[in-house]
Amino acid sequence: MSQTKILLDESEIPTQWYNVIADMPNPPTPPLGPDGKPVGPEALSAIFPDALIEQEVSGQRWIDIPDKVREIYQLWRPSPLYRAHRLEAALGTPARIYYKYEGVSPAGSHKPNTAVAQGYYNQQAGIKRLTTETGAGQWGSSLALVGQMFDIEVRVYMVKVSYEQKPFRRSMMQTWGAEVLASPTDQTEAGRKILAGDPDSPGSLGIAISEAVEEAASRDDTNYSLGSVLNHVLLHQTVIGLEAKKQFEKVGDYPDMVFAPCGGGSNFGGAAFPFFADKASGKEVRLVAVEPASCPSLTRGHYAYDFGDAVGLTPMMKMYTLGHDFVPPGIHAGGLRYHGDSALVSQLYNEGLIEAQAVHQLETFDAGVLFARNEGIIPAPESNHAICAVINEARQCTKTGEAKTLFFNLSGHGHFDMASYDKYFSGELHDYEYPAEAIDAALHNLPEVAEG
Amino acid sequence: MSQTKILLDESEIPTQWYNVIADMPNPPTPPLGPDGKPVGPEALSAIFPDALIEQEVSGQRWIDIPDKVREIYQLWRPSPLYRAHRLEAALGTPARIYYKYEGVSPAGSHKPNTAVAQGYYNQQAGIKRLTTETGAGQWGSSLALVGQMFDIEVRVYMVKVSYEQKPFRRSMMQTWGAEVLASPTDQTEAGRKILAGDPDSPGSLGIAISEAVEEAASRDDTNYSLGSVLNHVLLHQTVIGLEAKKQFEKVGDYPDMVFAPCGGGSNFGGAAFPFFADKASGKEVRLVAVEPASCPSLTRGHYAYDFGDAVGLTPMMKMYTLGHDFVPPGIHAGGLRYHGDSALVSQLYNEGLIEAQAVHQLETFDAGVLFARNEGIIPAPESNHAICAVINEARQCTKTGEAKTLFFNLSGHGHFDMASYDKYFSGELHDYEYPAEAIDAALHNLPEVAEG
Repeated sequence: MSQTKILLDESEIPTQWYNVIADMPNPPTPPLGPDGKPVGPEALSAIFPDALIEQEVSGQRWIDIPDKVREIYQLWRPSPLYRAHRLEAALGTPARIYYKYEGVSPAGSHKPNTAVAQGYYNQQAGIKRLTTETGAGQWGSSLALVGQMFDIEVRVYMVKVSYEQKPFRRSMMQTWGAEVLASPTDQTEAGRKILAGDPDSPGSLGIAISEAVEEAASRDDTNYSLGSVLNHVLLHQTVIGLEAKKQFEKVGDYPDMVFAPCGGGSNFGGAAFPFFADKASGKEVRLVAVEPASCPSLTRGHYAYDFGDAVGLTPMMKMYTLGHDFVPPGIHAGGLRYHGDSALVSQLYNEGLIEAQAVHQLETFDAGVLFARNEGIIPAPESNHAICAVINEARQCTKTGEAKTLFFNLSGHGHFDMASYDKYFSGELHDYEYPAEAIDAALHNLPEVAEG
Repeated sequence: MSQTKILLDESEIPTQWYNVIADMPNPPTPPLGPDGKPVGPEALSAIFPDALIEQEVSGQRWIDIPDKVREIYQLWRPSPLYRAHRLEAALGTPARIYYKYEGVSPAGSHKPNTAVAQGYYNQQAGIKRLTTETGAGQWGSSLALVGQMFDIEVRVYMVKVSYEQKPFRRSMMQTWGAEVLASPTDQTEAGRKILAGDPDSPGSLGIAISEAVEEAASRDDTNYSLGSVLNHVLLHQTVIGLEAKKQFEKVGDYPDMVFAPCGGGSNFGGAAFPFFADKASGKEVRLVAVEPASCPSLTRGHYAYDFGDAVGLTPMMKMYTLGHDFVPPGIHAGGLRYHGDSALVSQLYNEGLIEAQAVHQLETFDAGVLFARNEGIIPAPESNHAICAVINEARQCTKTGEAKTLFFNLSGHGHFDMASYDKYFSGELHDYEYPAEAIDAALHNLPEVAEG
């Protein structure tokens, strides 16, 4: 019988994270403050520990993973690399399809890879509380999971409409001991201001970020934690691609193409950056970020300085953006609804070193269901984006007869997303293509920045 | 760093199931028909394929696992054996705690171990459709998962109240292509009869079984499939204990005590029977079935012939039973609500070869939350029963200083049971202890059987 899962021993968990900045042809663009000048590390120290700020700006290629972090990784890592024999047979494709399954983490996605590291460095810095925001709950539950492990209280500002509609992610966070508040709350200036204007506000990710950051900035024992976008978050996620490379070595194969879903960028960065290291040394490998057509920042946005949050409180980052007040339509089920993208992913895309594809919602669910019926695992809607792009490529191989090696990151399971599958089966999900004017209108609001 | 997960290669998936009947000191008691005479294999052939009927009555110690079944097992097997370092530290116990994690299957529990085998043998017998019943949905989703893989249509009669209250298990089954009906339906004689009497009937497991069996018995291309209780189901589950024994060998340890939740018995049989083989050869190992105090068949029931279903359609089996019309209180959240128990488990218990413990609901959730906060995984409420018993034993070890090796089957995750955790956190769950008269009353209804 041919091998299905390529496993590694716990001793093979990477001992260092890979920093893509070391291999980028140009230095990363700096974040800018409201005055248009680069924001120094010191401005971030009210909400982040020094170790993470150092990682955010480091140009060092390899950064040591602390033993304590690797020890907690052992609860689920190394994650398995699967050869998708049954999916290949169903497609009748000559392509070889592999996927890294990150849904084996207790929180069910790749997010704990960075949550553990952030918990560790905050504990080292003497921090007793962490705040964060969460929408659907993937990130909030990951931080809740590790809070316990580092004796750190975790407070999650959960967008009120999600808090009410998705009670099970909330229960998960409470099981791990986190405090979960429906945002807007009356506990922060930002929340009270919103509630004064609209006592029934359903909340938004932008409001929840404001509440979490405000609390962290105003308390000495409290820091703030973010689950994507920033350089140090992508750094921590590189354990995914680093393990995958070892696993490919074991079976004597190597991907022609690497696919990962792309919202804020940590999923894609984690899976693809370690392969970028090879590409930078001349190896041929195509790296494909897959985003939703309903939130097409890379494929239809502008490459420009914009705010990271909806209300303009964060530093500005140079990134592909749809405008910081862009709101994707409510018909979209997945968690890839960020208006912008990681600065690192954006820069690599702008320089033509990585590729991007936008896929429509219904085809992602078609792909996810086909996958589930053959491989068993029911994927998260975000992961379905990568699966969709891989299946399209594998079908192309069927036509051309090319036996390409395709690899994707199956970033999480869909156990907490069955309501989206329900909507798909009952015909309530739709596709949405923005008219060019809608994109242009959103981009009118980009901040003016005099670039040096 | 000390090892957390003890893994096996796919080549180490067992090639044979272990049949405990070969090592039992006495032959198993036969099932009896309505006339009080033993039911022959031929009576079962309307709803089961011959291969499964042979396994049901076989006395052979080892039964080959077909290659095709092992190939599908590879999608998640071998499952990891964990050493619970963090839980041990939290308890300050000298005990060594290990758990086998069966939640890695796509359906999230141990149930697919037998679903795959049943799908295979039914396909071999030319069967195109399988019917089954499901309450909370663990079993129905496992059969749905494998239906696709053997080109077998699966129809699940899901108890109507669960169908309405637990939509996500239903969506899971639909994702895997199964047809899910809210039972009672108007498609069977049994269902129509119930609906005629009560158009708003919430359904029951007994009614759903009647519908599934009726349909299977009346159609040549259709068989029926059961997820626990029967000998062949427990047989298929022995891959759990067989793998665990190999994993213990790798780390040079061996359990003093084996714990598993016990409802119908497949969870316990699967984990414990392979260790019983050693016990039968003189090795010291205690095997502990853990049941809910709200449905205490082993610890408070009678050992007697009784029907397997609520309405008396099935053959009678000699087992520990609370009476076939016993209905546990609705306050109980777990899935261990069966009035009886596997005949094999019952016989071994009656002969003093295995032990049983009953635990209360609130302490099981206390245990599950403590486990989740240390080990990460959020367990299914059924699994919490075993965890509770293990934690009690480990705390005992703390007092006595004994460094016992404790092993339990973590039979599934709780991702589809968060509503129960919610109720626990909000104080809506309660314990329930039956007064002796209540148990006696239920037992008054046992069928009269003249035993030979």
